[in-house]
Amino acid sequence: MHFGISAQQAEIAAEVLSASDLRGIDSHGVARLHTYFEMLSIGRINPKPNMQVVREKYSAVTVDGDSGLGLVVGPWANEVAMERAEKYGTGWVAVRNSNHYGIAGYYVLKALERDLIGWSMTNSAKLVAPLWGGERMLGTNPISVGFPGMEEPPIVLDMATSAVAYGKIQIAQRKGESVPDGWIVDKEGNKSNVPADMVNGGALLPLGSTREMGGHKGYGLSIMVDVLCGALGGANWGPWVPPFALRQFVPEKEVGKGTGHFFGAMAVDAFIEKDEFKRQIDDYIRTFRKTKPAPGQTAVLLPGDPEREAEAIRKVEGIPVVEAVVNDLLNVSKETGIPFEVAKAV
Amino acid sequence: MHFGISAQQAEIAAEVLSASDLRGIDSHGVARLHTYFEMLSIGRINPKPNMQVVREKYSAVTVDGDSGLGLVVGPWANEVAMERAEKYGTGWVAVRNSNHYGIAGYYVLKALERDLIGWSMTNSAKLVAPLWGGERMLGTNPISVGFPGMEEPPIVLDMATSAVAYGKIQIAQRKGESVPDGWIVDKEGNKSNVPADMVNGGALLPLGSTREMGGHKGYGLSIMVDVLCGALGGANWGPWVPPFALRQFVPEKEVGKGTGHFFGAMAVDAFIEKDEFKRQIDDYIRTFRKTKPAPGQTAVLLPGDPEREAEAIRKVEGIPVVEAVVNDLLNVSKETGIPFEVAKAV
Repeated sequence: MHFGISAQQAEIAAEVLSASDLRGIDSHGVARLHTYFEMLSIGRINPKPNMQVVREKYSAVTVDGDSGLGLVVGPWANEVAMERAEKYGTGWVAVRNSNHYGIAGYYVLKALERDLIGWSMTNSAKLVAPLWGGERMLGTNPISVGFPGMEEPPIVLDMATSAVAYGKIQIAQRKGESVPDGWIVDKEGNKSNVPADMVNGGALLPLGSTREMGGHKGYGLSIMVDVLCGALGGANWGPWVPPFALRQFVPEKEVGKGTGHFFGAMAVDAFIEKDEFKRQIDDYIRTFRKTKPAPGQTAVLLPGDPEREAEAIRKVEGIPVVEAVVNDLLNVSKETGIPFEVAKAV
Repeated sequence: MHFGISAQQAEIAAEVLSASDLRGIDSHGVARLHTYFEMLSIGRINPKPNMQVVREKYSAVTVDGDSGLGLVVGPWANEVAMERAEKYGTGWVAVRNSNHYGIAGYYVLKALERDLIGWSMTNSAKLVAPLWGGERMLGTNPISVGFPGMEEPPIVLDMATSAVAYGKIQIAQRKGESVPDGWIVDKEGNKSNVPADMVNGGALLPLGSTREMGGHKGYGLSIMVDVLCGALGGANWGPWVPPFALRQFVPEKEVGKGTGHFFGAMAVDAFIEKDEFKRQIDDYIRTFRKTKPAPGQTAVLLPGDPEREAEAIRKVEGIPVVEAVVNDLLNVSKETGIPFEVAKAV
């Protein structure tokens, strides 16, 4: 709001961020507030975007985010997808000219609140090498999809299409640890176990890592996300997706506008009786929970379980915030004059 | 046609099968004809299905395949998806009561012929263990998605959500070779490198294989495919998907009807000028072909390249068919009285 973002939009943005922290995805929550603050400070993010539907045909819509905060553009475009689904059975929205939109899963949770099947994808700045490639060409390009249950909680897939998150490389580097085969390559594309090799110009590998283990599949999925988010709505794609923060590599050209997202929503009752579907999802979840575990494992999880478990704990115990993030928030407080109180040291 | 399938439908089924052989996916082509023949012989596949739209709302449709040949039901339902896309921007069809539908990619190629973005998924009989699971619960549940180019050939992803294809385990077993870590588990869920351990009641692992390498992601994608193909249209799912051939494990219960598919089509011009998109796809392909290769590699491929290369060769040199398949075809010829001539030994 300090930059002129409306109270309503600021509240939505705060909801997206805190949903991430609540679900245990610390990297995408309030830890990113300082980054958004910086991007707004230098005018790289537009605080008062004129978000518009620029093209549409029943279930298909393209939205221009006018360089707004992804945490504002994303929820707006996702709402369009949900409305279209309620009218036309499904709704699919390609978004251009946006910025980092938080966790992909947030948008799916909003669809699930309305008993819709939700889809959410975004492209992002380059970090991942194609299979057999020796340089960064793709973002970690996540996919999230969710299915509503009746008595059981929903099934919520929320995954990057890289083998691992960049955050895991940074953590290993900080701890001075090596990383497993198949996570990273160095700046020439050689296999490496040294985190610094990736951080200093190397790349993450796509899900599957090697040809033998299916690295072409993770690479292909990443391209799928990138084309739906980038080329389809007129956003940047591949190595040309802009960075989400300052002090990061800025691509030398633009092939579209800003960062791109892709949202989908499907009205269950357009395909099948809603209660019948939700009962099937309950049965699905219960069937999979009864899977015989592999030796040494206690049980098979369903997609969304880890995040839900984190949420259950954090709703009671609160959300721990590391000192570096507290200091970032204190800095935002100082720069803006907005009071910020540290409730409890951790 | 011997079983009463119409000439038109038989021709379409033959087209699906030969598309597989032509693209180098020998496992899903004419090698399966004997299986379809057997299933038709004992009445497990209905040669004259009354395929119907059983529910619909603009872009969303559910089709009942009436136990027809998947090679007939699939193309029919895919046509519905494409028509809806042309009318309503996108079209999405959940299919129940079908059977094995050939290669996922065939359906996407049909959409690409009409400059649509195509999607195709199917569930299949259980072969894959969930991450941390010690038994088969999911099929290899493939996903195919394709994007049309202008001067360049389309980008066509066509991938199983398992780490590897079952065929690779069978080949290793035949050759007496071991398989890499991360491909399979034995019937208790222990890691194994012995193909027979998987074949005799063990399981394939999902794409990503282990938790550390992202096995939860491949597992989640497989569930996504299974819910869209199974629960959404009222087909079976998970361990209850029926086998596609005789002499295979038959699940002890049904939670829906037959095997399920899910087709999608998106009209490019509902989102963006069609030529603009196709030029972007050309630029995308050219950009990725210029990726610096990793040491020891000559170039980065695009999804669809290997199949297109196989097709280019086979269109000139013909399609090699192994003796076992020739014998199967001779058997079909003998049983039906339909002449079959072996043109050339290989």
